[in-house]
Amino acid sequence: MKRATIADIAQRAGVSQGAVSYALNGRPGVSESTRARVLAVANELGWRPSAAARALTGAHAGVIGLVLCRPPSILGAEPFFMELFSGIEAELKPRSCALMLQMADDQDSEIEVYRRWRAEGRVDGVIVVEVDVADRRIPALEELGMPAVVIGGPPGTGSLASVRSDESVPVHETVEYLAALGHRRIARVAGLPHLVHTAVRDEAFAAACTRLDLPGCATLHTDYTGEEGARATRRLLSSPARPTAIVYDNDIMAVAGLSVAQEMRLRVPDELSLVAWDDSQLAQVVRPALTALRRDVPAMGAAAARHLLSLVHGERPPDVETEPARLTPRGSTGPVSGSR
Amino acid sequence: MKRATIADIAQRAGVSQGAVSYALNGRPGVSESTRARVLAVANELGWRPSAAARALTGAHAGVIGLVLCRPPSILGAEPFFMELFSGIEAELKPRSCALMLQMADDQDSEIEVYRRWRAEGRVDGVIVVEVDVADRRIPALEELGMPAVVIGGPPGTGSLASVRSDESVPVHETVEYLAALGHRRIARVAGLPHLVHTAVRDEAFAAACTRLDLPGCATLHTDYTGEEGARATRRLLSSPARPTAIVYDNDIMAVAGLSVAQEMRLRVPDELSLVAWDDSQLAQVVRPALTALRRDVPAMGAAAARHLLSLVHGERPPDVETEPARLTPRGSTGPVSGSR
Repeated sequence: MKRATIADIAQRAGVSQGAVSYALNGRPGVSESTRARVLAVANELGWRPSAAARALTGAHAGVIGLVLCRPPSILGAEPFFMELFSGIEAELKPRSCALMLQMADDQDSEIEVYRRWRAEGRVDGVIVVEVDVADRRIPALEELGMPAVVIGGPPGTGSLASVRSDESVPVHETVEYLAALGHRRIARVAGLPHLVHTAVRDEAFAAACTRLDLPGCATLHTDYTGEEGARATRRLLSSPARPTAIVYDNDIMAVAGLSVAQEMRLRVPDELSLVAWDDSQLAQVVRPALTALRRDVPAMGAAAARHLLSLVHGERPPDVETEPARLTPRGSTGPVSGSR
Repeated sequence: MKRATIADIAQRAGVSQGAVSYALNGRPGVSESTRARVLAVANELGWRPSAAARALTGAHAGVIGLVLCRPPSILGAEPFFMELFSGIEAELKPRSCALMLQMADDQDSEIEVYRRWRAEGRVDGVIVVEVDVADRRIPALEELGMPAVVIGGPPGTGSLASVRSDESVPVHETVEYLAALGHRRIARVAGLPHLVHTAVRDEAFAAACTRLDLPGCATLHTDYTGEEGARATRRLLSSPARPTAIVYDNDIMAVAGLSVAQEMRLRVPDELSLVAWDDSQLAQVVRPALTALRRDVPAMGAAAARHLLSLVHGERPPDVETEPARLTPRGSTGPVSGSR
């Protein structure tokens, strides 16, 4: 079955191609009965204006772009991105709008993708993830003038629209909770240090520990893999003043940390408390189930998609602040040994 | 920065728009020096032919489509799809081809997406995943005549091209291995029964158990979530003739099963052996690490993308048979108690 063309409709309806064009575009020049016949035939043949023809007339592409710039091994291990896509898709689907996905090795090739998409009119706008502390994509997108929404920040989003949540609130909430349980040495196994949200969490963690007079607190950075999460946990638990609580920047590292505790015969939570950020099925199926910082990732994706569609239609709504992650206590956190 | 047009190039180069068009399209009618000047200006202005203009001339869209038809909660929990995307992207990237992603609630809305994509010329072809035993998408795609590659099957792929691996080989290998370790009651916690690959594994499992004279073997079906995996495991381990080994259809259910064993104070692998299908970081970070059926998911995605691009260019290469999953023993499997 070939795509139906204007010529096919003209032939089947027994009118000229010009008449078909007038009829389909709602312009005068054909009788109402001809218009009705043409529309019936077009419908019967499954005709639709091609995306190409609509785009040439300046209509929207009906496509939103997203470039991912992480190694696939990490993308696969974290539920975050798939949940984000599902939230984006939930907004796009009713509008028959699609998501264009591309992977890039680094920021320069990501910028090259944006330039090409812009030059070719492939997408109406882009959603940008994982803001870097020295992000070259933000000025490049500002210069391109392409509608864009950044998930993350502040800081670092420049003049671009953003969908953000305050990452310092849950850090303070978590440290206060652990301190209330008697923990004095709390460690943080963090993600990539060059990401803005890591830097924000690092700073909030240091501030909370200072405020609560917990001088023995430390942060180790990793690449988000379970392997590095396990190694960081072993290092922390082998130190002379080992922490009694560890907060992880993702779920797969927290699960790896739980396994290291088992390896080293430390009882969770009696001898070691663990907190995962984000929450996931994974965090919930292990034993003990992990206390987690839970946020609505699909809702973030949906907010970003809605915001971007507004920008594409010429509006500039205010930036969206989504709810901070909430501490959800489960079996992996408890009072520090001897303090009950 | 607006997109550069033919008019912009003509103005900057000081020639007519017609001359620019001749120069850019490599047609005679302009001098070589004019052509060189036009190309230099076009390059300087970052001009490219719009995707719309190329598509109208019958050129390819440079886009591959993929529709996902599972609840987001399950998509997020399994690394499978993200690994598949990364393999597809690895093939598309060097060709400046992109992946269009859409989610659908059911097969009918998935077919509707295919119809729209086809009618609007949005994608050059599609990759189809998760073949159903009564799959309505296959005949719909055959009728649309859109280039398509199915990941999965046989059976069920009709006249469409496919990238497949023999799912019965690893089932036999696993059952033989467990039987050699002395297991007589082996259970299978399977995925959705209406998927072709589940049916193939079910049949192979029953055949292997019959062949090896293991009458106490059973299969329970689930929706792939950790929660259902845990519930199925509890049911199996609470039965009077409880299995001494369980094989799971994904990693998140196997991890959930490991937790249930801990809950019920069964030592793994001394009292219960566990096998996960597929392998993942998740399977490797838990303790004991899970014996897993390992396959190269990105390679499957890459093979499907390569195959689809061949179809788009009018070739019809033979179907691709990828290597079957390989049994990778780790700490979660061992001899049955008392049989050592």
